[in-house]
Amino acid sequence: MSSAFLRACRREATPFTPVWLMRQAGRYLPEYRAVRERFSFLELCKNSEAAAEVTVQPIDRLGVDAAILFADILLPLEPLQLGLSFAAGDGPTLERPIRAPEQVAELPKVDVADALSYVFETVKRVRAALDGRVPLIGFAGAPFTLASYAIEGGGSRSYLGTKRFLLEHPDAWDDLMEKLVDVTADYLRGQAEAGAQALQIFDSWVGHLAPDDYRSAVLPHMRTLFSRLPTGVPVIHFGTGTSGLLESMADAGGDVIGLDWRISLDEGWRRIGFDRGVQGNLDPAILFAPFPVIREKVRALLASAKRRPGHVANLGHGILPGTPVDGVRCLVDAVHELSTSGST
Amino acid sequence: MSSAFLRACRREATPFTPVWLMRQAGRYLPEYRAVRERFSFLELCKNSEAAAEVTVQPIDRLGVDAAILFADILLPLEPLQLGLSFAAGDGPTLERPIRAPEQVAELPKVDVADALSYVFETVKRVRAALDGRVPLIGFAGAPFTLASYAIEGGGSRSYLGTKRFLLEHPDAWDDLMEKLVDVTADYLRGQAEAGAQALQIFDSWVGHLAPDDYRSAVLPHMRTLFSRLPTGVPVIHFGTGTSGLLESMADAGGDVIGLDWRISLDEGWRRIGFDRGVQGNLDPAILFAPFPVIREKVRALLASAKRRPGHVANLGHGILPGTPVDGVRCLVDAVHELSTSGST
Repeated sequence: MSSAFLRACRREATPFTPVWLMRQAGRYLPEYRAVRERFSFLELCKNSEAAAEVTVQPIDRLGVDAAILFADILLPLEPLQLGLSFAAGDGPTLERPIRAPEQVAELPKVDVADALSYVFETVKRVRAALDGRVPLIGFAGAPFTLASYAIEGGGSRSYLGTKRFLLEHPDAWDDLMEKLVDVTADYLRGQAEAGAQALQIFDSWVGHLAPDDYRSAVLPHMRTLFSRLPTGVPVIHFGTGTSGLLESMADAGGDVIGLDWRISLDEGWRRIGFDRGVQGNLDPAILFAPFPVIREKVRALLASAKRRPGHVANLGHGILPGTPVDGVRCLVDAVHELSTSGST
Repeated sequence: MSSAFLRACRREATPFTPVWLMRQAGRYLPEYRAVRERFSFLELCKNSEAAAEVTVQPIDRLGVDAAILFADILLPLEPLQLGLSFAAGDGPTLERPIRAPEQVAELPKVDVADALSYVFETVKRVRAALDGRVPLIGFAGAPFTLASYAIEGGGSRSYLGTKRFLLEHPDAWDDLMEKLVDVTADYLRGQAEAGAQALQIFDSWVGHLAPDDYRSAVLPHMRTLFSRLPTGVPVIHFGTGTSGLLESMADAGGDVIGLDWRISLDEGWRRIGFDRGVQGNLDPAILFAPFPVIREKVRALLASAKRRPGHVANLGHGILPGTPVDGVRCLVDAVHELSTSGST
């Protein structure tokens, strides 16, 4: 029998609700920080041995039901020669952002098998290290979210540059999205071939778009991307702030749709449709609260999901820096315990 | 016959869809920047003559159907002695943020009529200057949004401090919200008594909360606030990122509910209920687009609203710095023209 996580992705019944956490391999863990002392962030991503080590670190410590590859959604932008770097303590920066439509035509063709081979090597090492304990999730940033970094040159509050680009230069926008779909499809296929047993597509910032802009500028490209992914590997389609986009995101594709905490799980699932799974959707901030509050939030989440097959418990976004490890463990234990006891 | 704006707030039929824009008095206007050269931001808020001048500036220039008081949502925090200041080019800062529950009990009692008398004076001056051309909207920050600034000490990306406070110290949180409700109710009543013909409550950041946290930590206080407002003055209840909260926000109160662009207007209105008006909801980024794109977005918005009585056209949030004035004028004209012609 396959793992509870993979069964839930396929909407099969599970003995308990499976749970993993976005950014479960990260800075809140002392053993991660110890490894990080030896590498810069980008070095760590590229060192397959160390990346595999930090991928596996949280599995036993937290008791989660899946591992997620340690990498960054922006790695595929590096071979596009936009000047990607990660300054210590700050977010990512792109030295040569895309500001003019002509730049899209000049983007180099990427040989993903070569440029991102280190990621595929990490996948193989993680599979060996996990030795079947839990499945491994591979991932990539979605084309819109990648495009937003490529255009803004980093993070953004308003995504004004990205929105202007897609409104003013719709043809160049479509070209850019097609190129990013090509890279992302190759990248995700490569991860699956290397051994990733599920895939998550992070469209982290797509929730900044109006629904009609999503449908015209993003959805067709996401459909193409989903059509190019290997069959038999469940795909999780994730975003934040997407309460107004859920139907369109489900329309684009994904076996499981990720929800953030800004919508109740049952309301979100109803709008997505019960023919899909859902993942989420606790507020990462609750991990700082006293244990009884964390348990109560888990209880309410499970009550909202009603133990329908197809729920993967998770936060609605990544674990925040400074999160107490004990709070994370409390959440994982509460999901397992309260979904087994039938107390919901 | 009263103005199209006030009629729409009461869900009465109007000859055209009324429109105004959040931050229509602001930095994108050269004549505003000219006044700002003579004052710091806080000085401008406190100088009733100058504040009235910038309130009125956009009315003829843009052809909008309502004026909104020039002020800042954080002004009521100043008499609470948290050390409010506005650094040039940056957002607001509070030198003495609320970090411990004990601090809530120590907050001074505010005599709003005295401490914020300059705002009421501005309202009177604006009414005189407008001379009935268009109605004047007064406004205040909602208690949650004020509390978030008071606790975080400024803006925030995650609102982690605010969420921790309300989860860890629910009694102190309720005390804080009650005190902010008291100040806000007095402040809005004072504006109405001075001549504001409608009121908008900005719960700008409440969309960061999960629906269950909204219902337990915010909604009861919002109900109290709405119960203390004068009758006969329409109230607009506004937030951003609230696609998952709309039913609860409508439940809390408001004649008109503000929508941002992350949900389609018809979907949002259906969830709020057609027994309320709605305001919104174009993405402020579209004002940077070519005129035909702006007109197309207005056409789609009006089609979505179906000329149901109760729609006030607006952006989904404030005009962004650097927005072209001609784009704003294009939007206003398109709303008037396309809602009159019946072409939608």
